[in-house]
Amino acid sequence: MSHSSTKFLINTALVVAAASTMYSCKPKSAEAAATGDAAKAYVAPGKYDEFYNIVSGGFNGQMSIYGLPSGRLFRIIPVFSQFPENGYGFSEETKPLLNTSHGFVPWDDLHHIALSTTDGQHDGRWAFGNANNTPRIARINLSTFRTEEIIEIPNSAGNHSSPFITENTEYVVAGTRFSVPMDNGNTDVPINTYKDNFKGTVSFIGIDKNTGHMNIDFQLLLPGINFDLARAGKGKSKDWFFFSCYNSEKANTLLEVNASAKDKDFIMAVNWKKAQEYARAGKGKKVPVKYAHNVLDEKTHTATSEFVNEVLMLDPKELQDVVYFMPCPKSPHGCDTDPSGEYIVGSGKLAAVIPVFSFDKIQKAIADKNYDGTYDGIPVLKYDAVLHGEVQKPGLGPLHTEFDGKGNAYTSFFVSSEIVKWDIKSLKVLDRVPTYYSIGHLSIPGGPTKKPWGKYVVAYNKITKDRYLPTGPELTQSAQLFDISGDKMKLVLDFPTTGEPHYAESIPAEILMKKSQKIYKIEDNQHPYVAKGESQASVERKGNEVHVKMTAIRSHFTPDNIEGIKMGDVVYFHLTNQEQDWDVPHGFAVKGANNAEILVMPGETQTLKWVPDRTGVFPIYCTDFCSALHQEMQGYVRVSPAGSNVALTFSTGKNLPVENTPAGNAGNATPKK
Amino acid sequence: MSHSSTKFLINTALVVAAASTMYSCKPKSAEAAATGDAAKAYVAPGKYDEFYNIVSGGFNGQMSIYGLPSGRLFRIIPVFSQFPENGYGFSEETKPLLNTSHGFVPWDDLHHIALSTTDGQHDGRWAFGNANNTPRIARINLSTFRTEEIIEIPNSAGNHSSPFITENTEYVVAGTRFSVPMDNGNTDVPINTYKDNFKGTVSFIGIDKNTGHMNIDFQLLLPGINFDLARAGKGKSKDWFFFSCYNSEKANTLLEVNASAKDKDFIMAVNWKKAQEYARAGKGKKVPVKYAHNVLDEKTHTATSEFVNEVLMLDPKELQDVVYFMPCPKSPHGCDTDPSGEYIVGSGKLAAVIPVFSFDKIQKAIADKNYDGTYDGIPVLKYDAVLHGEVQKPGLGPLHTEFDGKGNAYTSFFVSSEIVKWDIKSLKVLDRVPTYYSIGHLSIPGGPTKKPWGKYVVAYNKITKDRYLPTGPELTQSAQLFDISGDKMKLVLDFPTTGEPHYAESIPAEILMKKSQKIYKIEDNQHPYVAKGESQASVERKGNEVHVKMTAIRSHFTPDNIEGIKMGDVVYFHLTNQEQDWDVPHGFAVKGANNAEILVMPGETQTLKWVPDRTGVFPIYCTDFCSALHQEMQGYVRVSPAGSNVALTFSTGKNLPVENTPAGNAGNATPKK
Repeated sequence: MSHSSTKFLINTALVVAAASTMYSCKPKSAEAAATGDAAKAYVAPGKYDEFYNIVSGGFNGQMSIYGLPSGRLFRIIPVFSQFPENGYGFSEETKPLLNTSHGFVPWDDLHHIALSTTDGQHDGRWAFGNANNTPRIARINLSTFRTEEIIEIPNSAGNHSSPFITENTEYVVAGTRFSVPMDNGNTDVPINTYKDNFKGTVSFIGIDKNTGHMNIDFQLLLPGINFDLARAGKGKSKDWFFFSCYNSEKANTLLEVNASAKDKDFIMAVNWKKAQEYARAGKGKKVPVKYAHNVLDEKTHTATSEFVNEVLMLDPKELQDVVYFMPCPKSPHGCDTDPSGEYIVGSGKLAAVIPVFSFDKIQKAIADKNYDGTYDGIPVLKYDAVLHGEVQKPGLGPLHTEFDGKGNAYTSFFVSSEIVKWDIKSLKVLDRVPTYYSIGHLSIPGGPTKKPWGKYVVAYNKITKDRYLPTGPELTQSAQLFDISGDKMKLVLDFPTTGEPHYAESIPAEILMKKSQKIYKIEDNQHPYVAKGESQASVERKGNEVHVKMTAIRSHFTPDNIEGIKMGDVVYFHLTNQEQDWDVPHGFAVKGANNAEILVMPGETQTLKWVPDRTGVFPIYCTDFCSALHQEMQGYVRVSPAGSNVALTFSTGKNLPVENTPAGNAGNATPKK
Repeated sequence: MSHSSTKFLINTALVVAAASTMYSCKPKSAEAAATGDAAKAYVAPGKYDEFYNIVSGGFNGQMSIYGLPSGRLFRIIPVFSQFPENGYGFSEETKPLLNTSHGFVPWDDLHHIALSTTDGQHDGRWAFGNANNTPRIARINLSTFRTEEIIEIPNSAGNHSSPFITENTEYVVAGTRFSVPMDNGNTDVPINTYKDNFKGTVSFIGIDKNTGHMNIDFQLLLPGINFDLARAGKGKSKDWFFFSCYNSEKANTLLEVNASAKDKDFIMAVNWKKAQEYARAGKGKKVPVKYAHNVLDEKTHTATSEFVNEVLMLDPKELQDVVYFMPCPKSPHGCDTDPSGEYIVGSGKLAAVIPVFSFDKIQKAIADKNYDGTYDGIPVLKYDAVLHGEVQKPGLGPLHTEFDGKGNAYTSFFVSSEIVKWDIKSLKVLDRVPTYYSIGHLSIPGGPTKKPWGKYVVAYNKITKDRYLPTGPELTQSAQLFDISGDKMKLVLDFPTTGEPHYAESIPAEILMKKSQKIYKIEDNQHPYVAKGESQASVERKGNEVHVKMTAIRSHFTPDNIEGIKMGDVVYFHLTNQEQDWDVPHGFAVKGANNAEILVMPGETQTLKWVPDRTGVFPIYCTDFCSALHQEMQGYVRVSPAGSNVALTFSTGKNLPVENTPAGNAGNATPKK
């Protein structure tokens, strides 16, 4: 087992040079790390994990729910990507959730999780996630663990500094990693006119206090640089938001070199309360755009998609007291605020120190107009004037910082592959542990909140190599759980993760367990094609559309024999699961469909669209092992030629007695109407 | 925490009545099962699991790789369903794998795993899996852990008794769970003519010894009953195959009742060697059909799909010494042969006993023509003549049996929710343990082979309810690991599983680890659009198709600036990953694409098709966190109106020096040609 270090080689000289001169805590071999603590990670059968670990899926576009400390995967929640497993993005009810101004988009790249907070503490209502590629934000209900809403972000690209959240969930934000020509201007411009024509934006998406519904309250028009990550302030700084920015060089090609030229880029400080006031006061400009807003209705179990046609744009060059830049070495990635709200940590991924900024000093520098000029018309605060101090020789490639609520910060280092614990006030390094290999984000339960739950830190590593049994060229991603309850961090467990997790939040089990919904009440089901009871099952023709209102209950469908479908018909199977007991889904599939299955929860209705490709008899069956007679839960649909005179009939049951059935006259298919 | 038992209630009286009269080992509460053994399940960081656990994904259509004893998920291998995470079923290279005679099918239901064997023992070459809904069999290469081949099965539906395998991987089989009208006849028939017009088939898919390539050697035309599960013989019985059959009532509606009427259904014994001889001797009939055969070429990294137009059909009514029925109580599900090949265990899911058949007695009964009449023209052997004996009062709802190689059988019981260990020869029950809840399949490493590896048994449970932190109405599936190295089974671990695992095989780590492939050699890459080195990168127009031969290496694309794309163009990004180091994938996405990402392994080429929906400048970026400067791995593609005179140009690098760049003249996009 060898740990090849070639993956984190980078082409700029700085880090490589730094590695040889200032840094000595190299990762030990994997063998040396064969420690850990069985008793701490093990959750015995019948016992529960302490924390829900809600993890972004990165390039799988989903969120995953793990337990801590066991590292067990309890659920993949489909968000931005189609999920054949349960029909998300394939059923008629869920397809609208993936609609965008570009049409139906079956995939995205979900990097960050933000759990809703009240007074800066987890309230267990919603999880938000971002889509990087086709900019969007999603809201997941933490009672049903379902995606309930997705809003597209116009005037954006590479939606990376998203969906960070304000203290009382007033806003989630969405910043452009990739600047682009604004949607309301001429977008067909030469790429080498980047500096003239490409802009960044930060969107403030308002969250309805009661429903969680999202709307884009306003956007800030910003220089064409790359906004990477963000955190809202807390406590005294709660009206502010802080964003890391790189590529202040405004390069549009080979950014590996060209965006790494300057010694400092920026942390951007935004007074969102002030911006909100300006927006309310009509200081913005309504600009034409087109973006999708998709909402799932819990009563009909159906999502709808509509387009919005304008957005309110604020220009901080005109509104001078909203946005400030603070110089930050070098290509800052993480931008994290401590539980007190006083300290803002900028992690320059090519920097040799970690700068910690002081909110009080920022306020004083703004009051004193202690500027170091402007950048694109926006004031740049003097580095020394806003700096609390720098953590010296912390490690190589600092990325992200979280907090334990006891005055300590924990920073991940990609290049030197470690977590470093340091004191927020004194800036002294207290402890360091290697990670295998090349950690990206780290996550402490409640780490980004005002009152961290602490106890563990999880490393989300970017390189796996030899950590698990190999699975060919393509490997899982690897997380590591550390116990941080003592002075020193202790490795407890290596656990693999699905997709490419970037970030996660963890919340105590007791907050979510008690509010987890078990079924959908069938009496509340307002789906237009619901069948409440088998007596409501039916097959109806509307032109060339055939609507089957079908029921499922252990262990049969009603109807389970259907005839009279014809070539050219489009068949909609609307399946209502009649069960009202937890964990009794029924699934539905029809042979040859160019579609996924539908997996239908108790009390719910879902619809599978089917266009028969030939005449014949097509089996249907339940795809979820629902009972001892699950294998018997099947039926048949007959498809006849266009223009045939086979009548539309449907039925369930009443085969003739077996022994007396003459061959060729088995069963019946007596129409119910 | 209460375990509601309502899920496994079934509507026939038998089992319910039996439950109250003959069975007393009810599952204890979950609390009572809070035992287990931390040290046994824990695999310390830096250490490896002992076994690869290759698990079917059920309704997710995939296979998953877990480690035992840790229960950790190392990989989801996309097989029958689209997988947005890595572009499987979305990239141009992989889309042909999901082609069928019904067109492109994005989903299926994968129930069973069969690992290739030589002399009845795991050889670690391939894993086969079945698609239930649109009948297919897939072959996965266990060096690359990729799906290499998918073959459609004509004249079939509900392809459930599949893909079981002969001792030297001569054949995998595929039997119809749902009988249907044969493809070569009139398929548009009334459903109530089931007994006349619906037939079952078993397909014998020949496996090429060297390449693993599949072809349908022949099919057996069988009565219209439901073939459920199967096992080949071993040793002395290796030329035979055994299939469980239910619905000998030939019901076509409400099978829950109508297929549960008879006291006995059948185990079907097939002399496949004899059938093969008949096939070779021209005793079959070639019948017209149409089915897809899809093969991935390892050199081009590209799959192709072609249609086959006939299949060889053998009729066992004419070839009298090929197929025999053995009566088996009641609605048999599992059908398992012990390591010696002498014993065949039929698990009637509604039966009160487990019958064990003797291969020697079967041979004698056939020789003696000791028949109990015929069924649809096929001889029925006398039950008493072929029976080794019955396990009495074993439990309720027996489903599946595996073996430990020490003379013991382990049977899963869905209704009484337990595993029961019994002696194969004496038929005495030796031990029983509850499972939480309602076990389906179980799996012992090597359990279906001639030489089981033993040590563990895994229960794949169908009901989860309160076993883990709740995640709303939709829950994970739950597996349980038991240590079977001693006389008594001991619960070690509860671990969740993705999809709806049905069956699994486990194979020692040492067999697969040493042959796991790490990269694709770029010098072997014969993709028609490969770029080996940046000098081969290009953008070429062919009518309205634009082909981008693009390279990725840490941390840039070449080219990363492209202009001259026009509305109406179809753009193919052919991305070649230049890396030759393990675990350095690059990903690729373009904003707004109605497509998934592509995730490209070292040395590989994959293609993303993009049809721009508007003019403008579209970011592209690497979706896999590949280096410290991964965030800088981006570029832009400009799309101009149809008919515009923007020239087709492409480039990487050479922005002007930052400080001296006049605004509006940043960078360049000097065409390379």
